[in-house]
Amino acid sequence: MATKYDRVVDLLRTRIEDGTYPAGTRLPAETALAEEIGFTVQVVRRALSELQAEGLIDRIHGRGTWVRQQRRPVERTTERYVWEKQRVHASEEERASTGATERDAGLEVHDLLFEAEYAEVEAPADLAATFEVSTSTKLLRRTYRTRTHGDAPFNVSTSYLPLDLVAANPALLDSTREPWPGGTQHQLFTVGVEVDRIIDKVTARPPRADEVAALDLPAGVAVLVLRKVSIDITGRVVEVADVVLPGDRTQLVYTTQLPRWSA
Amino acid sequence: MATKYDRVVDLLRTRIEDGTYPAGTRLPAETALAEEIGFTVQVVRRALSELQAEGLIDRIHGRGTWVRQQRRPVERTTERYVWEKQRVHASEEERASTGATERDAGLEVHDLLFEAEYAEVEAPADLAATFEVSTSTKLLRRTYRTRTHGDAPFNVSTSYLPLDLVAANPALLDSTREPWPGGTQHQLFTVGVEVDRIIDKVTARPPRADEVAALDLPAGVAVLVLRKVSIDITGRVVEVADVVLPGDRTQLVYTTQLPRWSA
Repeated sequence: MATKYDRVVDLLRTRIEDGTYPAGTRLPAETALAEEIGFTVQVVRRALSELQAEGLIDRIHGRGTWVRQQRRPVERTTERYVWEKQRVHASEEERASTGATERDAGLEVHDLLFEAEYAEVEAPADLAATFEVSTSTKLLRRTYRTRTHGDAPFNVSTSYLPLDLVAANPALLDSTREPWPGGTQHQLFTVGVEVDRIIDKVTARPPRADEVAALDLPAGVAVLVLRKVSIDITGRVVEVADVVLPGDRTQLVYTTQLPRWSA
Repeated sequence: MATKYDRVVDLLRTRIEDGTYPAGTRLPAETALAEEIGFTVQVVRRALSELQAEGLIDRIHGRGTWVRQQRRPVERTTERYVWEKQRVHASEEERASTGATERDAGLEVHDLLFEAEYAEVEAPADLAATFEVSTSTKLLRRTYRTRTHGDAPFNVSTSYLPLDLVAANPALLDSTREPWPGGTQHQLFTVGVEVDRIIDKVTARPPRADEVAALDLPAGVAVLVLRKVSIDITGRVVEVADVVLPGDRTQLVYTTQLPRWSA
C-alpha cells in the first residue's frame, strides 16, 4: 500500500499535534517541505490533501497552507441512550443540569448555545414507511443545532415524532421549552412512552451546501449521517432522528458485548 | 431548511428507483428537467449533486447525466460478531460454508472472490498505543479485499494481530489458508483466545486516491472508516482492523438495547 505517503502523513500530523507547527502558523511551501523531509512534492501534496480532509490544515490555492485551530473532537457512544433513559426518573433539577451532547463533549450546559425549530409536516415516503403510517400522517419535525460560544455546531439534527402521539402533552409542541430537561426520552415519558431500543443506521457522504454552511466545514470534509430509530416497549417506532455530524471531528463508538462460550 | 431542494431530490430518486429512468439511461438536460418539474436550474443542479453523492447517477461535465447501474447495497450489523463467535465451535464444513461478508450481502461463498495479503510489520504509533505495546513490536498485517465477480470490492480491510500471539499456530501466518473457515475469531481460538467484546469506532472522510481505485468509487462519494478493536476475556486487545467502506452502498447498523425501568 501507499507507505511513503503514510509516512509523510504521520510525520506532518505529529508535527501539528506536538506543536512544532502550532495552530494558525503557515506551513513551509510544498517544495521546501518536500526537500526538507526527503520526499517528492507529489507525495507531500497527497499527504497535505489527507490532512486537509482530516481537518488539520486549511489550504488556499496559490496562497499556502495553514494549521487549523483544532475543533473540539466529539466521541458519541451509545451509552448516551442508556444514560438518558436512566435519567428520566431523576429530578427536574438534575435533568436540567446536563444533557447528552454536553456529556459527549465534556462540557457544561452553560457552555452551549442551543437552537430548536418546530414544524408540523406530512410524513415523507421514507419516514411514513419507517413509522408504518400513511404519507398524509402528520409528524412533529424538530430541528436542532448545538454549538459552543464562538464555534461551529457539533451537529445538525432533525427529529420526527408522530404528532398524534405527542399532542397528548401540549408542552411538547412548544419549541421555547427547549432544551427540554432530560431530552427526548423524558418528553416521550410524559406521554406514556418507554423506549425499549434505539437503532443507529450510519452512512457517509459529502456534505450538502447548506450543511457546509451550518457546520462550518472546511473543504474536503465528509459527513457522517446517522438515522436514529427509537422503538418503544410495544414495538412501535416513536422517534426517527437524522443527525448529520462533521467527519473531521466526530467519532461514533459502538461496543458489542459477545456471549461467553461457557457461561 | 432546503425544502424545494429536498422535493427535487425525492422526485428524481423516486424516478430512478421506480424505473422511470432505468440504469444506463441519460437524464434530460438540466434546463429541460427544471422546466418539466417546475423548479429552477440551480435547484435541479444541487439535487443532481446530491444524487451523485448517493451514487445514483454519474455526471460528466459538459456531456450529461446518466443513471448508474446500482451497486449491491451492504448492511453491516454487529450481529456478525456474535454470529462469528457462535460458529467457532461449529464443524469445519459448516464454518467453510459461509462467512460474515457473504452473510451481510446475502451471498454464497462461491459468489465471492477473496484476496488476502500478509506482512510482518513494526507497530505504528497509534496501533502500538491501542495494543499497549512498544513501537518496535511486530504485528501481522493482513489486507483483505472481497468482491463479487465483475464488481468492485465491498470494502478494503487491514487487520493487525500481535505476531507473538498468532505465531503459536504457524498456519495463521500463511495467507494461502484464506479465506479461513470461521474467520478471525476462529483463528484466534486456535491460539487459545476468546473474544469478549468488539468496539467499532466510526468516522467518515473523502476517499484517498488508492481507495477510489480499489473500491471503484464514483466521483463525489465519501467513505466510512471503521476501526474495529477486539478485546479478549482477559482484557487484552487481540485484533485491530481498519475497514474502509464505500459510503454510497454501505449502511452500518447498531442496535442499543435499553434496560427496563421496572424489571
